[in-house]
Amino acid sequence: MTDLLALTAELVDIASVSHHEQVLADHLESFLRPVAGLEVVRHGDNVVARTRLGRRFRLILAGHLDTVPADGNARARVVGDTVHGLGASDMKSGLAVFLELARAEAEPAVDLTYLFYAGEEVESRHNGLGHLARDHPELLVADAAILGEPTNGAIEAGCQGTLRLAVTTRGRRAHTARPWMGDNAVHRLGPLLSLVSGYVGRRPALSGCEFAEALQAVAVEGGVAANVVPDEARLTLNHRFAPDRTPEEAEGHLRHLLAPALGPHDTVEVVDVAPGAPPALDHPLLAALVEGAGLEVRAKLGWTDVARFATLGIPACNLGPGDPTLAHRADERAERALIESTFAALRRLITTEP
Amino acid sequence: MTDLLALTAELVDIASVSHHEQVLADHLESFLRPVAGLEVVRHGDNVVARTRLGRRFRLILAGHLDTVPADGNARARVVGDTVHGLGASDMKSGLAVFLELARAEAEPAVDLTYLFYAGEEVESRHNGLGHLARDHPELLVADAAILGEPTNGAIEAGCQGTLRLAVTTRGRRAHTARPWMGDNAVHRLGPLLSLVSGYVGRRPALSGCEFAEALQAVAVEGGVAANVVPDEARLTLNHRFAPDRTPEEAEGHLRHLLAPALGPHDTVEVVDVAPGAPPALDHPLLAALVEGAGLEVRAKLGWTDVARFATLGIPACNLGPGDPTLAHRADERAERALIESTFAALRRLITTEP
Repeated sequence: MTDLLALTAELVDIASVSHHEQVLADHLESFLRPVAGLEVVRHGDNVVARTRLGRRFRLILAGHLDTVPADGNARARVVGDTVHGLGASDMKSGLAVFLELARAEAEPAVDLTYLFYAGEEVESRHNGLGHLARDHPELLVADAAILGEPTNGAIEAGCQGTLRLAVTTRGRRAHTARPWMGDNAVHRLGPLLSLVSGYVGRRPALSGCEFAEALQAVAVEGGVAANVVPDEARLTLNHRFAPDRTPEEAEGHLRHLLAPALGPHDTVEVVDVAPGAPPALDHPLLAALVEGAGLEVRAKLGWTDVARFATLGIPACNLGPGDPTLAHRADERAERALIESTFAALRRLITTEP
Repeated sequence: MTDLLALTAELVDIASVSHHEQVLADHLESFLRPVAGLEVVRHGDNVVARTRLGRRFRLILAGHLDTVPADGNARARVVGDTVHGLGASDMKSGLAVFLELARAEAEPAVDLTYLFYAGEEVESRHNGLGHLARDHPELLVADAAILGEPTNGAIEAGCQGTLRLAVTTRGRRAHTARPWMGDNAVHRLGPLLSLVSGYVGRRPALSGCEFAEALQAVAVEGGVAANVVPDEARLTLNHRFAPDRTPEEAEGHLRHLLAPALGPHDTVEVVDVAPGAPPALDHPLLAALVEGAGLEVRAKLGWTDVARFATLGIPACNLGPGDPTLAHRADERAERALIESTFAALRRLITTEP
């Protein structure tokens, strides 16, 4: 069998920062085209490979090609059973697992659609899954989907929604030697920050998975000049909400929370929002994955393309060998044991008659 | 007598935003050179005109040429007895008073040094008074000084010091879906802002003048990315302190105030500082000004070049026809009555044997 740690290192060494996935897409395309039984379609820097075996079920195995920018970790480094480097966790170890499944299993018990796509780490409009859904919806027809996002080899079900709000406080300028002539918009952030930092998120359990809501300030800015009482300040908040709430409900909840700290001229506006997705492990394929491999099941707290599949009506979950807490960090890495156990769990799933 | 409102309008119409005072300096130089009994020295865009009458006392009348940038008010507009326009208050109405005194009083009872200087509204290193003190200290020899900064025609004694501090809070980055893995540096601004906005400044009375200390946030910034718990935030504070405190005492006071809201990795650094100056109305010339004109006397809350004269050992005060609350505003303006009464008070002073 292929050395999956070495294959991960090989993929890490092919740089693929968002918007620069072409070389990696070329590499995967030339890897997949010779594989017997796979139909390969290239669309931009997205590579789709499908079996056409006429099985009862079709399963999507999807992974994004892109990484965030390097942080001194652009080259792969293998130390013992660990591969260090940009994307090792998020999610080139997951890509390695999918590539080896595609190579090794020519006649799986379920039809497979491998989706290797670009533009996941950046604004939604660049997302390759979105481009495929728009331009080639026929390629996204499937009964279930598994995303190879880092989950430490566990199944992370559903995903939380994400809502970004910008709060603008407004006051009145004055000279700082006579501040009582004005109204300091930066001072007015104090009570807002107290509400935000004291926020206790709900932890609802859905289908046995406990989600954990959160509210964080992610940016703050304000100021006119060194001797001027500022008349405007802006606080940007990121709220992660469990999938039992719609984006509208989450927004209403936050507006209600913040209202006591807002003045009549302050405003709250939605910067962006993406719905969550409830756990969807009832489908026989995903149920078989859970039961067959005895994997831990928990809620996905971050937002992933599981939500995009949910809007397409495709039940999906996350399963990947990377460590989500190491994603986007300089010390990003992946472990051989988790890469191999994830491979084994997926191989068992696709070779067993459902 | 010259129409001082018209003269102010004429000066407003000669643009002199900081670093671009040359045309106005040329204008004043050519106005002053023909005046009998005045020795005129040009140094950069600073114009100094002196009588050499051998009087017992020498008084400096000083005013800066520069204005802040225009805000739709670059041209003068006279409506009734009001002149509107950039610098009308700060401080071309004051310059008009000094120019008319220079023209009208060829043989005053005190020797006079008129200082028209550049670069007051910008960083201290551009200040023309500083350049003169460095390059021509002999031109700054005097017994007392009056600055024509806007005071609404009252005497504003001394000035408060100003201290700018940057507070940097430091935390730990994490994904906003798992904020408990990090420490939000922006949230930590909340308690700091509570301390700052709740600050009650001292109001010490010095030589009968009540000062009013203040503490204001003037800038705030922080944030890494839309989905990242920020690990650093920066809050800039401006403290105005009464002249019974040294800059070091003011800094110590603030550090003590802020300490309860600071963590072990947070830092407080001085961005810039300028000492205040206590009221100095004991000199016979300034005492005569107060008594002769029956002017209201109060503390100057802002920082002015009175502090620069204080460090040169020259007792000084502020007296100008402008309204300090209108300085640096789009609706800046000056009133005929105050321009004329200020002129009358100064004329009485310089024509009376002290």
